[in-house]
Amino acid sequence: MRALNFNGGPAALPLPVLKTVAAETLDWRGTGMSIMENSHRAKEVVAMAEETQADLLSLLGLGREWKVLFCQGGASLQFAMIPLNFAPEGETCDYIDTGLWSTKAYQEAQICGAKAHLAATSKADDYTYIPGEFNFSAKPRYIYLTSNNTVRGTQWASFPKNPPAPLIADMSSEFLSRPLDLSDFVLVHAGAQKNVGPAGLTIVLIRPEWAETGKKNLPHMLDYRTYIEHDSMFNTPPVFAIYVAGLTFKWLRDEIGGLEKMRELNKAKADFLYQAIDNSGGFFRGTARKDSRSPMNVTFRLPNEELEKDFLAEAKKVGMAGLNGHRSVGGMRASIYNAVDMAAVRTLVEFMAEFQRKRG
Amino acid sequence: MRALNFNGGPAALPLPVLKTVAAETLDWRGTGMSIMENSHRAKEVVAMAEETQADLLSLLGLGREWKVLFCQGGASLQFAMIPLNFAPEGETCDYIDTGLWSTKAYQEAQICGAKAHLAATSKADDYTYIPGEFNFSAKPRYIYLTSNNTVRGTQWASFPKNPPAPLIADMSSEFLSRPLDLSDFVLVHAGAQKNVGPAGLTIVLIRPEWAETGKKNLPHMLDYRTYIEHDSMFNTPPVFAIYVAGLTFKWLRDEIGGLEKMRELNKAKADFLYQAIDNSGGFFRGTARKDSRSPMNVTFRLPNEELEKDFLAEAKKVGMAGLNGHRSVGGMRASIYNAVDMAAVRTLVEFMAEFQRKRG
Repeated sequence: MRALNFNGGPAALPLPVLKTVAAETLDWRGTGMSIMENSHRAKEVVAMAEETQADLLSLLGLGREWKVLFCQGGASLQFAMIPLNFAPEGETCDYIDTGLWSTKAYQEAQICGAKAHLAATSKADDYTYIPGEFNFSAKPRYIYLTSNNTVRGTQWASFPKNPPAPLIADMSSEFLSRPLDLSDFVLVHAGAQKNVGPAGLTIVLIRPEWAETGKKNLPHMLDYRTYIEHDSMFNTPPVFAIYVAGLTFKWLRDEIGGLEKMRELNKAKADFLYQAIDNSGGFFRGTARKDSRSPMNVTFRLPNEELEKDFLAEAKKVGMAGLNGHRSVGGMRASIYNAVDMAAVRTLVEFMAEFQRKRG
Repeated sequence: MRALNFNGGPAALPLPVLKTVAAETLDWRGTGMSIMENSHRAKEVVAMAEETQADLLSLLGLGREWKVLFCQGGASLQFAMIPLNFAPEGETCDYIDTGLWSTKAYQEAQICGAKAHLAATSKADDYTYIPGEFNFSAKPRYIYLTSNNTVRGTQWASFPKNPPAPLIADMSSEFLSRPLDLSDFVLVHAGAQKNVGPAGLTIVLIRPEWAETGKKNLPHMLDYRTYIEHDSMFNTPPVFAIYVAGLTFKWLRDEIGGLEKMRELNKAKADFLYQAIDNSGGFFRGTARKDSRSPMNVTFRLPNEELEKDFLAEAKKVGMAGLNGHRSVGGMRASIYNAVDMAAVRTLVEFMAEFQRKRG
């Protein structure tokens, strides 16, 4: 039986995507080989990769001023590549600190020799909200933010207006969950393992014009230009993960109906779950400030840790996985990414009500 | 129908491994989720990753003085990480140049600021052999070599004796094809996409003691210590690729019977194919010097390029894939990795004889 998967990432993938993967494992598109066994330079594979890039741009409504890169190493490698390329040798770059992953990005920029400036942080309030006021430096090269905070369950509802420098964002845990206006952005990165596909693929959206402003003579695999010039095939890319991403993009387009529709579905799920929390008379307590709540990661607490432990154990018994909060903060977290449907959220809400009835 | 897969990489995987992957796609080990949907921190996944590391050490007969790392970015990222860690700030390191990939490693070391010294090269003879004499520098930090040259079809039969510094090798295209004596080595890297699993995973074997001698305060994802300290789970590793690697290791152990047996099987396949080439009266010509021939990648030419084109086209028609040489050198290449069995090689040899009969 399939579990109800509330994992924070790696996370649930669409069932039709998995069924296609299973069916094609021994023979992908009539090649007589698995996609894992095909050469990345075979024309069928190159065509698949190009189609995947085109489908993604089309989903996001982006034109050819953007390029889709298939990178590896997760957000953690992006934390280094961004300052190495764009703020080397002590140049100033601004960071907005909204929790674990933006803190790491900020620290990594310092390791890489950038002059990283903290333009805002909600640390004093336990990262329960997204800051609305910023103390930008005089001339930053870029402004970095994490658009959805998986750990704290917060999300930027809208991005800084008229920023004094281009925006760069880690969108890993909300990527493709809603339409995005990227006019003020030059680079967006997203680990595949939330809404896209298996871990081991990092999607980078970048404006090639901006990439050209980067430091020259970096190691090839750390230079965004390498990926742009070779269309992400300077060396062997993570072909299988790209293939699964491609299937997911087609699912989003053909079965969901695009990102606006996806946003509506995600909003309906999140509203339903947050309402259940808010209407529990304080038994369940949301940890994020209401104006900063993430529709992807719903974080909440129970009256005490013993009840939380029991809640997790009982949830597991009835086939609900991944409801524990991130190990750095504890508590509960229901990650309701694109592939988690309303039926799963309803089952969770019913389970919560039943648990409260018995133990509240 | 399954193709006869002679791809240079990504390459053939064992059929039993693929069948397991297909069968477990919707429900891995009773978790009710694909391995792609399981958290990398779930106890079942951590146990799988640890078992995969242990199985690999056991296959290679290595003890706890070695550590298995799951990296990303392929050999190309290793080309940078090695000098960044071990020869930063102009330290000397020696490179042996046996073709495309070692040339790239050598050049990348220079980009990274190392003082890279060429201790030997077979470039003048078109990389047709593995050098036997070396002009090592006075005090290199390490000596770097590529143990099997996929492009040129050459392989080191034995490694430099009493080297003046620890050896580091790219073993991507021969990894797990034979037992190895790693006494003189401190680091070995291998892209998974030849004998191990899907592209997107780079296996690194490293002596933690040696890793400790590396430069401090590097970006986390470029520092081998990060992988050692966090058992390759500093961030989300490429879980699916690790899972497939684990299945392949068990196949090698349980179905093949270990690396000595694998070496025998590989030798039998290579001997059979090289004999067919040598006994063709010059119609097929091996490109590598006989003492340097690779049992993994068998490179050869036909009398002219028109015949080569026809050979490839006819081979494809009868279901044989990947017989074209690397795009940088042309010609033919039959990659006969672990998962390509003797039956496939026999079919190829019969096809070659028939082609010669008709066109020779």
